[in-house]
Amino acid sequence: MRMYDIIMRKRNGSVLSEEEIRFMIHEYVAGNIPDYQMSAMLMAIYFRGMSDEETSILTDAMAHSGEMVDLSAINGITIDKHSTGGVGDKTSLILAPIVAACGGKVAKMSGRGLGHTGGTIDKMEAIPGLQTSLPQDKFIEIVNKIGFSVIGQSGNLAPADKKLYALRDVTATVDSIPLIAASIMSKKLAAGNDCILLDVKTGSGAFMKTLEGSIELAKKMVAIGENAGKKTVALITDMDIPLGHAIGNALEIIEVVTTLHNQGPADLTKVSLELAANMLHIGGFGTPLECMTKATKAIEDGSAYLKLIEMVEAQGGDSSVIKDISRFAKAPFEKIVTAPKTGYINHMNTEQCGIASLVLGAGRETKESTIDYSAGIILKNKVGDYVKAGDELAVLYTSKEETLKEAEKILLYDTVIDETPVKQNPLIFARVDKEKVDKFI
Amino acid sequence: MRMYDIIMRKRNGSVLSEEEIRFMIHEYVAGNIPDYQMSAMLMAIYFRGMSDEETSILTDAMAHSGEMVDLSAINGITIDKHSTGGVGDKTSLILAPIVAACGGKVAKMSGRGLGHTGGTIDKMEAIPGLQTSLPQDKFIEIVNKIGFSVIGQSGNLAPADKKLYALRDVTATVDSIPLIAASIMSKKLAAGNDCILLDVKTGSGAFMKTLEGSIELAKKMVAIGENAGKKTVALITDMDIPLGHAIGNALEIIEVVTTLHNQGPADLTKVSLELAANMLHIGGFGTPLECMTKATKAIEDGSAYLKLIEMVEAQGGDSSVIKDISRFAKAPFEKIVTAPKTGYINHMNTEQCGIASLVLGAGRETKESTIDYSAGIILKNKVGDYVKAGDELAVLYTSKEETLKEAEKILLYDTVIDETPVKQNPLIFARVDKEKVDKFI
Repeated sequence: MRMYDIIMRKRNGSVLSEEEIRFMIHEYVAGNIPDYQMSAMLMAIYFRGMSDEETSILTDAMAHSGEMVDLSAINGITIDKHSTGGVGDKTSLILAPIVAACGGKVAKMSGRGLGHTGGTIDKMEAIPGLQTSLPQDKFIEIVNKIGFSVIGQSGNLAPADKKLYALRDVTATVDSIPLIAASIMSKKLAAGNDCILLDVKTGSGAFMKTLEGSIELAKKMVAIGENAGKKTVALITDMDIPLGHAIGNALEIIEVVTTLHNQGPADLTKVSLELAANMLHIGGFGTPLECMTKATKAIEDGSAYLKLIEMVEAQGGDSSVIKDISRFAKAPFEKIVTAPKTGYINHMNTEQCGIASLVLGAGRETKESTIDYSAGIILKNKVGDYVKAGDELAVLYTSKEETLKEAEKILLYDTVIDETPVKQNPLIFARVDKEKVDKFI
Repeated sequence: MRMYDIIMRKRNGSVLSEEEIRFMIHEYVAGNIPDYQMSAMLMAIYFRGMSDEETSILTDAMAHSGEMVDLSAINGITIDKHSTGGVGDKTSLILAPIVAACGGKVAKMSGRGLGHTGGTIDKMEAIPGLQTSLPQDKFIEIVNKIGFSVIGQSGNLAPADKKLYALRDVTATVDSIPLIAASIMSKKLAAGNDCILLDVKTGSGAFMKTLEGSIELAKKMVAIGENAGKKTVALITDMDIPLGHAIGNALEIIEVVTTLHNQGPADLTKVSLELAANMLHIGGFGTPLECMTKATKAIEDGSAYLKLIEMVEAQGGDSSVIKDISRFAKAPFEKIVTAPKTGYINHMNTEQCGIASLVLGAGRETKESTIDYSAGIILKNKVGDYVKAGDELAVLYTSKEETLKEAEKILLYDTVIDETPVKQNPLIFARVDKEKVDKFI
């Protein structure tokens, strides 16, 4: 078997065989297929696509290129959740305690942020002392005891994905639906959970900008999960507006706590509850309605909040900041951004919000950047709100005073205020399972 | 400027700017753009194509990546000819003396053969003592004195093409019309002639298998040549049947001499005259009819033959083998291949004929192979001929007796003899110039 012939076949529109796909991944990871052949293949896949079956085999081959996490020592159904990444997306740290409070098991491996989107692990590390790198047995022990634990991804999870992603990133082959689906799902399959809920973000702040693209990606990922014997469902959720008010690590943890106290922003609360209810539903905890009732109750009765405290303490964190959010370190510099005119906020570019937060120090421009946990943005008004000229739009926080001006400029650059009232999108656009697509728009 | 953005733009179907194309070639040759980015770009070009203008800029950038030959010291119009490569294609060594005998100047740089197609330089080296590597001033001196000279390509002619071709060869991106056109024409532009006649071979023995593909390639190359200020015309000629009877280096030189004595095979004579007449026409030597009359006369009066003798002697070769073709070294082993049945030869795979000749020792399987100049095939009957079972189809010649059986098998493998008379193709399918395509079929 020669890589040349496999490239030629894909280029000509043929469906690759299981043997060809496994050969390609195995030999690429082993260093026997050079990058220049793989990048030609990736571009051919970009143009020709891959069938569900090809994508499932590719994903499985990528998953098996490294460690396959064994979660069988966990008592009960393990339910994973994955978000395609957004700005201000702190739902993992809200829904995991909810699901745990309702009896589900969430053994979650999360990533760090890069570029304009944040990462759950970075947010958690805003809590002093919290360990996100735990040995496997300790991780499982915490899940069994508390119901959830969130740690950083093992370095050896789907190394084929790591190598392929690095190549895609420099050859303009990132935005291919089968390649995105295989990349995400290879890590999910390797992470060993029984069920997977996917949160596919769509809109200006998300990787997928259109609903159609998001649904296509969701269908591909659901097919891969189900082909691998895992109950898999996807929700398509709005990322045209940042979720909640807070962007930035400590600021988002504060918002998580507020939300678990049932005092959070309505959009964030609703999306977190929908995600949690769907996780419970695919985990077999009842009908959709029963699961929503359980999830809502876990916030109202404080049981989810207590689960968060338990997890923080089990992972070595200082829970006093959770119990008293005023104890979080404050950024030394802040700046109020005001509305330049009166009217309805018709547009705010969510990606620009993420970039402004990055500039303030809340994210990483390169893998080597260090994070300022106190930096970020609190949005005082969002798309759809009516503001008067001079009203607060947002407050910027940073340890580097000189970044305030640039961040304000980025934030306002694509913000449109005019007289037209805004038709609000629903927060959840669609639900995709192996049988059907339900659209709510 | 970043290669990533250029790949992305081509991937998305944009037309690249001159600046982008020149940057890409310059930095790739300089080693600043890695192969894995270039191969992704090549695959994107395979799918998206390139406009005539993009291809012209690409070709010019590739041509200027190395030495640009200066032929200005030649008195008169220099007329180049390029064949896309075929089996038994020895026309260069027939038409160059014809054109020279008619007053044209042919300063030709030719390649060596690789795989199933031969190369003019290898054929010339079947003449004892003939030098194909000459200093530039000696080359120009011979052209000025005799009217033509043929030498091997300089190592530094279009190095960008050399690097790109090696990459295309291993990434399944060879058969892209703009990339083929740029590859051929970059070397032609660098070779410095005033006019270019292209012989685009089509059919089973050629790189382009269909007439439509050949015309498309011809149009692209003519556009590039004309954009570079060179009078450029292409003929699309048949390579569904090998040209003439001889395949193999010394055997082909003998056929060249026979043809210049006006005793050659009809197909080879006709194609050579058409090519020569078109060269004279684009060189300004009269109307098409006048040029054909001149070319025909140069064979009939022996003046073209004398030009060949002069060139061989000027380049240090032993002209006695040309004057008496029986003096060429004979291959020690030969085998007659006979017709397995009676009927019309309906099909002979020309590529297989080339491969059989390669197996006998006439070609190179790898760049390091050495050539047996006496090896090859004389076709006694060709497609369209009526044969009786046991009639001679071909005679095989070699210095390695053990190859005879395999060569015979390859030759006969795809040969079809049946009762249906064969409709012959015209030898010239079409003529393409900057204004129009004339089809003769």
